[in-house]
Amino acid sequence: MSGPRPGNPPAFDESFEVLVIGSGFAGLSAAIEARLAGRSVLVIEKMALPGGNSALSGGLIAVANAPLLARDGIADSPDLLAEDMFKAGHGLNHPDLVRAAAAGSLEAFLWCRDFLGVVFAGSLHHGGGHSVPRIYSPENCSGSVILQALLVKCRELGIPIRLQTALEAFILDGDGRVAGAEVRAGHIFPQAQSGTPRRIGATRGVVLASGGYCQDIEFRKIHDPGLAGALETTNHPGATAEALVSALKIGATPVHLSWIQMGPWTSRDEVGWGVSTMFSVLVGIPHGIMIDASTGKRFVNELADRLSRSREMVAAGRDPMLIVGGRAARQYPNLAQGLKRGAIRRYDTLEALAQDQSIDFPALEATLRHFNLSLRDGVDDEFGRPLAAHERFPIEAPYHLVRLRPKIHYCNGGIQIDAGARALDIASHRPIPGLYAAGEVTGGVHGACRLGGMAITECIVFGRTAGVNASRAKD
Amino acid sequence: MSGPRPGNPPAFDESFEVLVIGSGFAGLSAAIEARLAGRSVLVIEKMALPGGNSALSGGLIAVANAPLLARDGIADSPDLLAEDMFKAGHGLNHPDLVRAAAAGSLEAFLWCRDFLGVVFAGSLHHGGGHSVPRIYSPENCSGSVILQALLVKCRELGIPIRLQTALEAFILDGDGRVAGAEVRAGHIFPQAQSGTPRRIGATRGVVLASGGYCQDIEFRKIHDPGLAGALETTNHPGATAEALVSALKIGATPVHLSWIQMGPWTSRDEVGWGVSTMFSVLVGIPHGIMIDASTGKRFVNELADRLSRSREMVAAGRDPMLIVGGRAARQYPNLAQGLKRGAIRRYDTLEALAQDQSIDFPALEATLRHFNLSLRDGVDDEFGRPLAAHERFPIEAPYHLVRLRPKIHYCNGGIQIDAGARALDIASHRPIPGLYAAGEVTGGVHGACRLGGMAITECIVFGRTAGVNASRAKD
Repeated sequence: MSGPRPGNPPAFDESFEVLVIGSGFAGLSAAIEARLAGRSVLVIEKMALPGGNSALSGGLIAVANAPLLARDGIADSPDLLAEDMFKAGHGLNHPDLVRAAAAGSLEAFLWCRDFLGVVFAGSLHHGGGHSVPRIYSPENCSGSVILQALLVKCRELGIPIRLQTALEAFILDGDGRVAGAEVRAGHIFPQAQSGTPRRIGATRGVVLASGGYCQDIEFRKIHDPGLAGALETTNHPGATAEALVSALKIGATPVHLSWIQMGPWTSRDEVGWGVSTMFSVLVGIPHGIMIDASTGKRFVNELADRLSRSREMVAAGRDPMLIVGGRAARQYPNLAQGLKRGAIRRYDTLEALAQDQSIDFPALEATLRHFNLSLRDGVDDEFGRPLAAHERFPIEAPYHLVRLRPKIHYCNGGIQIDAGARALDIASHRPIPGLYAAGEVTGGVHGACRLGGMAITECIVFGRTAGVNASRAKD
Repeated sequence: MSGPRPGNPPAFDESFEVLVIGSGFAGLSAAIEARLAGRSVLVIEKMALPGGNSALSGGLIAVANAPLLARDGIADSPDLLAEDMFKAGHGLNHPDLVRAAAAGSLEAFLWCRDFLGVVFAGSLHHGGGHSVPRIYSPENCSGSVILQALLVKCRELGIPIRLQTALEAFILDGDGRVAGAEVRAGHIFPQAQSGTPRRIGATRGVVLASGGYCQDIEFRKIHDPGLAGALETTNHPGATAEALVSALKIGATPVHLSWIQMGPWTSRDEVGWGVSTMFSVLVGIPHGIMIDASTGKRFVNELADRLSRSREMVAAGRDPMLIVGGRAARQYPNLAQGLKRGAIRRYDTLEALAQDQSIDFPALEATLRHFNLSLRDGVDDEFGRPLAAHERFPIEAPYHLVRLRPKIHYCNGGIQIDAGARALDIASHRPIPGLYAAGEVTGGVHGACRLGGMAITECIVFGRTAGVNASRAKD
């Protein structure tokens, strides 16, 4: 960390008006807005490829009052989305951030669709913990198309994205304002000392959009010792805490660091995110059931929030599996790939599935029969899962199976920002001059549990806000 | 904050070998050990009175393998206490700290009894979330006797306790070692700028034992927005976050800051901790029942951990009250005072109680009848409360009532320490040279929920360790 050096204005190797740290959804959204505001912008990225977790994401974006909902005559509002967020978040969410995210969600989606030109599927997904189906998915079920669209826009606008350039420390000027960053150019992650030190100035503002720390075993186990050791994660290898720590070292406020989220839809039969996860998210969970293979019975509302589901899935002795009917399974465009990899398995009869997975067949058959009746009636009398609000397929042959295992997925906590994406100081609770932040590196939006589809919404809402406000500073 | 000033050794107004910040159980335990190790010691305290929350505490101290337990033939062990701590803490606890606290609990108790000369009651208390009765209570049911004993010992040992002296910032030497503190002498809390700046050196170590932040509304609401506003707390007015923030500003690691505990045994009929709380803790909860006045029924295992109980108590529409029989109530030495203040109410008949509090009488009568049968059989078939392990009194006239309201009580989170009470750096995860910490200002011992009686155990175990290790440093 470089402290204030009164009387010595910092000397830089080069200087921009706005410096963005991180090249995922949040960082690129910030960079684009800053450039559109007429600023010179540099994006730095510590890895050899841009995008971080954004490049791996499923591309879901949650939208209050989604245009498609009106078509189906379903009522929604930013208030209802906010209510869902508070409920999943155990009320730990910062109300101003929840309101900004919910109110800005529609514009964030329209920006992706109309300004970036991303093509979304023609139906809405009902994500766990959401009151209504309000989640858009890109046509190919992957966030990479949103990332590509952002990268194309950056190229059009002439925004340089400097890869293998790692933040080393923030540089403060004599007034305690963030005036730039010490970086390592030519950095080879994870070699901490690799690369050449350089000092990059930012005359208007620095936007921190460096993502979460799911891959940082030492850091995450301090905050949740249950996540020590070599647990699997869906994240890219660079999801580590150094940039977050650099911000804390200059007085940014840590919030909710212990709330690290497990994804309740990953497979034990492939590594990381894999190809089965979006199958489970998009068709498996909305149209199938989760059972405990040790009993043949359901054990949870499959559309509960991620925290509730993950906790039930890892309960002692439980062996969670997802069973989906053929009609639903065929909706997933990448089904063949999942079957080929063995992450999704297909059986012609339920008995064959039960036998192959050592599940009590009469118990499993009774579970399916009961759930199919619940589907017909639109009421889940066992776990209160919402069944009325979306298209429903009975679970029928051929049966598709995913053997589930929650993996570490998302850091709900990070540094505190206000609704203007300004990083706040831990002592004064006021903005740290010159420092903005957005995306997974921030905390407070989600509290105890992020809802599906809210990460990209958050990245775009607060990323754009950060870019706009960093451009305005010091006018 | 004072950053490193290479080449300029810090100049101090005065210097000691060990500087202790805070004069509660943890700070005074550290000071005594440092003095016994032959060091010159100064304790500073920002308030006009010593002790902070320790002066208000109930004085309960949890002990694995309490000598009195053996008398009753009940098995206990540090492992069982550790297991109880992990369970209440949702597994967020740091295992090394849990083990150190559990293993050190017996010695901590013996130190209070035999070295400090505190007189404890002749029976053990069964606290919520503990598997067995393992909690000692001073004869007068107040932590003030332990505090007084510590103060007397400090006087005997010639340890100065300088009141109205507030920490302003830590001072680092050129090597990044904590070498002392900027303080304000003659400080008048809460006037931030009051007092005269002074620089106090600490040639061997600084022990931070400044307590929690339950009274710091701005700080606590960042970490748990549900605790915004003028919610009641059991804490003394000086339980604010400035000293914790000073440690974070030099790179101490924040842990579990959002886990702020409500006490499930405070009364809505008196302010703060009051006189009824120890009645509820010591006799009301172990021998009575909690009912929801809106239904006349029990709603929770009264001996569950604090987090579980508080959550149930504040559930929508619930109106929690504690009902205790006469025989149990008379065990509490300060009963008369509680009755006089109206915080404890007495009724000759259950009907009178029900009528006065607008509770459905037949429902309440059925609840009591059922619970008294459960007591007789030793099995709580409703909520699984342990009934077999301690003395049991049927709930009979005269009935005693406390109208409950959880109040903000304790900060489970704080800065990270290792089992040697060394404060750890957020980037390197190694000790910050010269900085030690103990007590409520630290985090990790309790995770999501502290068990009753474990605060004093923690303060004495890690306070003494901090004093010993701060004395050893730079030998």
